[in-house]
Amino acid sequence: MKLSDLGETTLLEMLKNKISQNLPQDVVGIGDDCAVIPKHNDEAYLITTDLLVEGTHFLSDKIAAKDLGYKVVAVNVSDIAAMGGRPCYAFLSMALPSDLECAWVLDVLSGINEACELYGILLLGGDTTQSDSQQFFNLTLIGEAETSLIKYRHSAELGDIVCVTGHLGDSFAGLQCIQEQKTLTDAVKKLIAQHCRPRAHIAEGQFLAQSKDVHAMMDISDGLAQDLTRLMDASDCGAEINIEALPVSSQLQLIAPQLKQNIADIAAMGGEDYCLLVTVAAENYPALTMLFQDKFKRALTAIGQVTAPGNGLTFLSQGNPYALPGLGYKHF
Amino acid sequence: MKLSDLGETTLLEMLKNKISQNLPQDVVGIGDDCAVIPKHNDEAYLITTDLLVEGTHFLSDKIAAKDLGYKVVAVNVSDIAAMGGRPCYAFLSMALPSDLECAWVLDVLSGINEACELYGILLLGGDTTQSDSQQFFNLTLIGEAETSLIKYRHSAELGDIVCVTGHLGDSFAGLQCIQEQKTLTDAVKKLIAQHCRPRAHIAEGQFLAQSKDVHAMMDISDGLAQDLTRLMDASDCGAEINIEALPVSSQLQLIAPQLKQNIADIAAMGGEDYCLLVTVAAENYPALTMLFQDKFKRALTAIGQVTAPGNGLTFLSQGNPYALPGLGYKHF
Repeated sequence: MKLSDLGETTLLEMLKNKISQNLPQDVVGIGDDCAVIPKHNDEAYLITTDLLVEGTHFLSDKIAAKDLGYKVVAVNVSDIAAMGGRPCYAFLSMALPSDLECAWVLDVLSGINEACELYGILLLGGDTTQSDSQQFFNLTLIGEAETSLIKYRHSAELGDIVCVTGHLGDSFAGLQCIQEQKTLTDAVKKLIAQHCRPRAHIAEGQFLAQSKDVHAMMDISDGLAQDLTRLMDASDCGAEINIEALPVSSQLQLIAPQLKQNIADIAAMGGEDYCLLVTVAAENYPALTMLFQDKFKRALTAIGQVTAPGNGLTFLSQGNPYALPGLGYKHF
Repeated sequence: MKLSDLGETTLLEMLKNKISQNLPQDVVGIGDDCAVIPKHNDEAYLITTDLLVEGTHFLSDKIAAKDLGYKVVAVNVSDIAAMGGRPCYAFLSMALPSDLECAWVLDVLSGINEACELYGILLLGGDTTQSDSQQFFNLTLIGEAETSLIKYRHSAELGDIVCVTGHLGDSFAGLQCIQEQKTLTDAVKKLIAQHCRPRAHIAEGQFLAQSKDVHAMMDISDGLAQDLTRLMDASDCGAEINIEALPVSSQLQLIAPQLKQNIADIAAMGGEDYCLLVTVAAENYPALTMLFQDKFKRALTAIGQVTAPGNGLTFLSQGNPYALPGLGYKHF
């Protein structure tokens, strides 16, 4: 049987099955955005690794080299943000075809440097080698956090308010604008920027990590529907999401009529948002969202509520069940 | 200008130029087998990452999947050994073509698990994705060490004895035996095993790290001549190596007459030995080698001496300069 008969989820499952079990108490393995290993008694390192492959994660004629480098870093920083940490040290492996232009490589590295500087990351090492045709970039990022403040996916509680820290769907819409070569209006440029240079919600993650009312946290990389399902699986709960509550940018609202999917589906399923998905104790959500609004000048948007495990994930539109056409982005 | 006009060293140089400078005092970046980041006050984490690509680092019809998985881990463990550390946590990224057999992938993962178990490593996470044709395995390995005991490449001293912890050339000879499909005698099998399942000298590294008389240490991955040159560059010194002193296994001696290169050249340049290269204070070398012999039942073999920087790397045969045909293994 070949890998293509199984799909990526199963390849990831194959890896997961080989991941170490019976870990020491101060070590966390797979299942969250980062692994956790001990640093000091009250501090831990968070570790994440992301592999970006040409053709699967990016098309080199559709993204500028600098943006690509920037994105390689940002998507990993988002994983650190998802657990409330600060990014610290990066290690970059590259496999590149020998007919690649040196200028392209230098630009990718400049983008990596730019993002590292922005997020306060030290690039400490890596490995380089040749590939036959595709470009491969693997970044391992190490962050740090106070152990007691680290947020996980598995701790959502019944009745929690489900929130997101930013707009949904912009990156997916930006990708469509690139693919369909839409005229570069200001709105289109903004959506494309969201796709090519995602902003990791690192300050938001650290702020939310300070609050005991934030029960579960993760970042949205494969789309709300798919990632929320992962959070529900980890927390053994269901969720009810109000499709009208999904926050969408004015740019997406402007462009949506020109796109193939409707705006609700784009917001619920479009991948690479890289904002944070959190569940918050219902009674203290009003106070937390005011603090969030004060600090970040925008809402910690409530989009639904955590329900009992049997209920699964339900999207509602004006109180009625709303059926999504499919679930998020798949690599294989 | 294309990458192929530059060669791999220059691609690595491009990366090195982008590596963070001005590091905090307790952080070490590129230039050694591992980066170093702080853990406790007196302990540090060592981090290394190695990318193995089909066609460049391995041929999938010339190595068993289990051996490949084993090797992916072992070559990284060797980097931890090179600085005197203990391996702890691993992260694996894989990009695989979709027409690959699942059984192959499972066997690679079994080999990875086997090596992780042997070396006491917890596999904590990773990433998987699709590639068009080649297999890519990137392992990031985190080890730990007492900060004061960590050994580097840059601290060799004039007059130091240059030593190695194991036989040289077996892996290179093993690779030739595979390529030329030599009859699988016991000797050939042993050489092939050395190539497919290298043993990281982790116990040796930890033992040598305890000694203040060991000044500089690294592992030999690209062949003695090339790696010693790196140590000399880092330490700003030269070295004189006695070609007759290079330790070669009885198996290599037996098979060497059937190989294309002479045995001295194979020992001096063959890559992937994964034993350790150390420089030891001359006056205390006799005592250290006795302790080493006691513990490991084989020699810490003296192969030459550290000389002044201007002298470069000289190989001597019976006191006369000996010219090597080329220098080590190049990826591009």
